[in-house]
Amino acid sequence: MKKYAVIVAGGSGQRMGGEVPKQFLQLKGKPLLQYTIQSFLQAYDDMIIILVLPKAHIAKGEEIIKQMDAEGKVQMAIGGETRFESVRSGLEFISHPSIVFVQDAVRCIVSQQLIRNCFEQAVEKGSAIPAVAATDSIRIAGEISHHTIDRTKVRIIQTPQTFQSEILSAAFKQAYNSSFTDEATVVEAAGKEVFLIEGEYSNLKVTRPIDLCIAEKLLEDATS
Amino acid sequence: MKKYAVIVAGGSGQRMGGEVPKQFLQLKGKPLLQYTIQSFLQAYDDMIIILVLPKAHIAKGEEIIKQMDAEGKVQMAIGGETRFESVRSGLEFISHPSIVFVQDAVRCIVSQQLIRNCFEQAVEKGSAIPAVAATDSIRIAGEISHHTIDRTKVRIIQTPQTFQSEILSAAFKQAYNSSFTDEATVVEAAGKEVFLIEGEYSNLKVTRPIDLCIAEKLLEDATS
Repeated sequence: MKKYAVIVAGGSGQRMGGEVPKQFLQLKGKPLLQYTIQSFLQAYDDMIIILVLPKAHIAKGEEIIKQMDAEGKVQMAIGGETRFESVRSGLEFISHPSIVFVQDAVRCIVSQQLIRNCFEQAVEKGSAIPAVAATDSIRIAGEISHHTIDRTKVRIIQTPQTFQSEILSAAFKQAYNSSFTDEATVVEAAGKEVFLIEGEYSNLKVTRPIDLCIAEKLLEDATS
Repeated sequence: MKKYAVIVAGGSGQRMGGEVPKQFLQLKGKPLLQYTIQSFLQAYDDMIIILVLPKAHIAKGEEIIKQMDAEGKVQMAIGGETRFESVRSGLEFISHPSIVFVQDAVRCIVSQQLIRNCFEQAVEKGSAIPAVAATDSIRIAGEISHHTIDRTKVRIIQTPQTFQSEILSAAFKQAYNSSFTDEATVVEAAGKEVFLIEGEYSNLKVTRPIDLCIAEKLLEDATS
């Protein structure tokens, strides 16, 4: 089965308080994005990367790919205004039937084991959405007050959100809707059920300066 | 205004996979609990600590307090089967009127600034429940399927949950109910509204081995 990892790097990095987009921040001397790409390339020999970047960052992305000596394995795609548009742009390069992983570029600690688990479940069930249980209590802010949710039922959603290519491509033929916060919601809006899979607590999304410190520590542990 | 920090260490540490209860794990050569106590003592000169531990751990707790030279500032209390019972046990040592902080012993990176912010809001509004926004999508697992929640509305709840003493003591006169997952839910069940306050992403609850690594990194950053 063909395998495509659509790696989406849309963010401008405002929450990091810096000028450098998060995916290009340095982690132990290498751009964060490089770790993300590497994990997918190492998980399967026949993995093809579709790297979706804003137009202004394509050259920088190509430079990283060149440094990695991965030109033959990576297709560049230009991102859009929304994550939905960016993913749709990446999906133009896939062929069917295949398994498509959609990955946040800034989740750079994703393990090869998780990638393989997602692949296997997506082959069997159509999708695999990594999720972990919450360790903190969760409340939902309402118009007037806020209410607590039974913590045992809360699932924190991660990537790679993984799908059979036909299911994902069909869903992305819909018109954009602001409720599309990730690929799972797009597929559900198209009338398909999605299936969760056990994620990893270490599969961190680098969003704030503190996350970069944590990612560094996790990387040290993973390689020690 | 008098100030009491009820520091609750009930966990047996099963999720850490070790025999040592989490609050006694070593973080840069000192038990994790010591950092938590220190933050509260440093936030206000007139802070009184009520340390709630399972009976079997009281001696260990006393030893830590002695090492910190904090005997005059700390009251020991014996914990119960549930967090509710443990907090109620600690509340026996407070006097009114005062402000009571209820703190997870394993949130050892809590800042003095957050403690002060909670104090000020609790004086003014009656309570202060630290909460941060979610960076990941959240789903709620249901009987058959699961549904996504608008991420902008999700609040991840932390401690110190801070209250005017009369409000908290009155609420803890209720009979125990399994929906009491934290002090805020107890106070709400007693018919009082609770008020959130901006928490801190670094205010981590040490629950898994990986959290200990992260806490170490955060501590290095906080002291550098």
